[in-house]
Amino acid sequence: MEAFLQYNPTRLWFGKDQIEKLKQDLGSEGKRVLLVYGGGSIKKNGVYDAVCEQLSQMKAEVTELSGVEPNPRLTTVHKGIEICREKHIDFILAVGGGSVIDCVKAISIGVYYDGDVWDIITRKAAAQKALPFGTVLTLAATGSEMNNLSVITNWELNEKRGWGSPLAYPVFSILDPAYTFSVPLDQTVYGIVDMMSHVLEQYFHRTENAPMIDRFMESVLLTIMEAAPKLVKDLHNFKLRETIMYAGTMAFNGLLSSGTDGGDWASHQIEHGLSAIYDIPHGGGLAIVFPNWMLHCAEEDPSRMTKLAVNVFGLDPSGKSDLELARESAAALRTFWTELGAPSRLKDYGIDSSRLDELVQKSFMKDKVGSYKPMTPETVRDILIRSM
Amino acid sequence: MEAFLQYNPTRLWFGKDQIEKLKQDLGSEGKRVLLVYGGGSIKKNGVYDAVCEQLSQMKAEVTELSGVEPNPRLTTVHKGIEICREKHIDFILAVGGGSVIDCVKAISIGVYYDGDVWDIITRKAAAQKALPFGTVLTLAATGSEMNNLSVITNWELNEKRGWGSPLAYPVFSILDPAYTFSVPLDQTVYGIVDMMSHVLEQYFHRTENAPMIDRFMESVLLTIMEAAPKLVKDLHNFKLRETIMYAGTMAFNGLLSSGTDGGDWASHQIEHGLSAIYDIPHGGGLAIVFPNWMLHCAEEDPSRMTKLAVNVFGLDPSGKSDLELARESAAALRTFWTELGAPSRLKDYGIDSSRLDELVQKSFMKDKVGSYKPMTPETVRDILIRSM
Repeated sequence: MEAFLQYNPTRLWFGKDQIEKLKQDLGSEGKRVLLVYGGGSIKKNGVYDAVCEQLSQMKAEVTELSGVEPNPRLTTVHKGIEICREKHIDFILAVGGGSVIDCVKAISIGVYYDGDVWDIITRKAAAQKALPFGTVLTLAATGSEMNNLSVITNWELNEKRGWGSPLAYPVFSILDPAYTFSVPLDQTVYGIVDMMSHVLEQYFHRTENAPMIDRFMESVLLTIMEAAPKLVKDLHNFKLRETIMYAGTMAFNGLLSSGTDGGDWASHQIEHGLSAIYDIPHGGGLAIVFPNWMLHCAEEDPSRMTKLAVNVFGLDPSGKSDLELARESAAALRTFWTELGAPSRLKDYGIDSSRLDELVQKSFMKDKVGSYKPMTPETVRDILIRSM
Repeated sequence: MEAFLQYNPTRLWFGKDQIEKLKQDLGSEGKRVLLVYGGGSIKKNGVYDAVCEQLSQMKAEVTELSGVEPNPRLTTVHKGIEICREKHIDFILAVGGGSVIDCVKAISIGVYYDGDVWDIITRKAAAQKALPFGTVLTLAATGSEMNNLSVITNWELNEKRGWGSPLAYPVFSILDPAYTFSVPLDQTVYGIVDMMSHVLEQYFHRTENAPMIDRFMESVLLTIMEAAPKLVKDLHNFKLRETIMYAGTMAFNGLLSSGTDGGDWASHQIEHGLSAIYDIPHGGGLAIVFPNWMLHCAEEDPSRMTKLAVNVFGLDPSGKSDLELARESAAALRTFWTELGAPSRLKDYGIDSSRLDELVQKSFMKDKVGSYKPMTPETVRDILIRSM
């Protein structure tokens, strides 16, 4: 293992009716709260009312910011920062999925920064202080509810950037699986692809001797793969929603990188390029790219893929070369996602090779792309062409 | 799953030379620190010097409390509380194994309590405030370095009591696997038995639908069982020490009970009765009792044992009744521990049935003993007789 710090200060309240913990964790009465949400689905499924009831019992003075986009935009972050300053907000409450939470993280950090918060997102400046925030999760996908990471899109620059800060952990997150009942099929599938990608990308590390964490990752994948095919046929099943929701959080709350080099996030970066230009769903982009990344890497080093093949996909290694087994592993993942209903080619989104150069360039928002296999513009191009 | 809170505020620094983080996490210079340790082995293996160097760089004003017993005693806790009050201690640093840490937790809680801290340990009073403390771990076993639990023995009453408090988490814990190189074979084995017991006791829950946490528990057990037989033949192997040390922490830091009823801790309570009277090593007592608890319970409900048999012990279920498979599971655990060098009968410690009634009575320090199978004095007696 590599030396590491395992630390996560978020209080995760999980289960039915845990919304009642909101009052307790908000602390004192009379706080000025900025309530942030997305397109308004929370007003249809009762979550908005449940949250407002808690806030009202706490005599909170509530200001709202709604309409956060699926790929949350810098302009919305700016708007939130302005409100926090004007209204002297004490606490931000994100109610929604990863996009809303990511947006709130950027607001929370931006409030106390004199310049444009984009400086922090692009790592030109470091956050010094943050406004505390909590979350009520309504979509199982990104894991943002229990980590210190966020992704923000700058449409002026067509850039989608991941960033993080030790100050960007939610104080608390409330996860009631029933709040995800109304998530439609396609969003449910994208969420499953996203959380599985998080685990898979962490799985492609090159750290010697991480046997327990490797098994934990396999456990998360096996659990998702057991529940997901049932869930897509039974969207109101509490136990299946519960299993997927908890798996999504554990997939990306830091634990699965404990003692490893953190894995290889090239696919996420390639996907960020894709959705920065085409605004496609993150999970959809990942479903297309990830198996092609595997096929691309298999030729150079199939070792982690063969382990995955046997321990997760249950493939029989006998009589196969490592490369064959690795390719079968990528194919098994593709089949699993396709059967859930995820897209498999960029043309499913009407994307062709006309902006290929730009896509390649947008994948290199960070100095380094890939670690299991370090990427060059040529290798990214190869993966994108395989994905057309 | 059951509704739950997942929360653990301890900063776990893991890996070679992580002692350097002590300075950083101690915060400011010039603190008055109470340094607590056990029988002095840390003076022989260099850990004491490494800690003192850090404290000296922080210009800490250090007072020492040494000689904490393997089953830490209330009298030692009292001594620590007195020193903290007299010397106006700001921070307590535990350097040692679970006993030292458990003792420090009780000191930390006792400093601000007006009555006898035994009231808090016996749940007659609740802790309101605690002195902050950190730990430098030198023995992989109890998990106390990343949980809020502690066990204290009151020799006047011959009582060994487990207790916990939301205030009893270490602020930080530093785990350098090299600090466990000098742990002798028997203590190494007891530690392995203790951590495996923690996982096994959590495994015997009756919660429906905890598939991921079940797999995590199986992962911890499989990882320990892979490394332990090699470690007992190669005590200075860093990678094996590292694997076991991290497993010990994860075995009992709260994660493995997320969403379950917490499992069945009857064996731990029976063992606490044993070591309250005979002062035997906790891990030794557990090695004797736990497989007999399994054999006792198998007749009533073998379900979790058959799962364990297949997923952890790799036993072939074909052609066997559930009861047969459950008994094989208990036998496999007994064999594994015996081959490591753990005791298997109470007579290995010279214990006979002469104080059997008292042993039974001492197992009932809590109102309720056992949940997978609730125990009565008769059932505890049966398990103890099987263990003679």
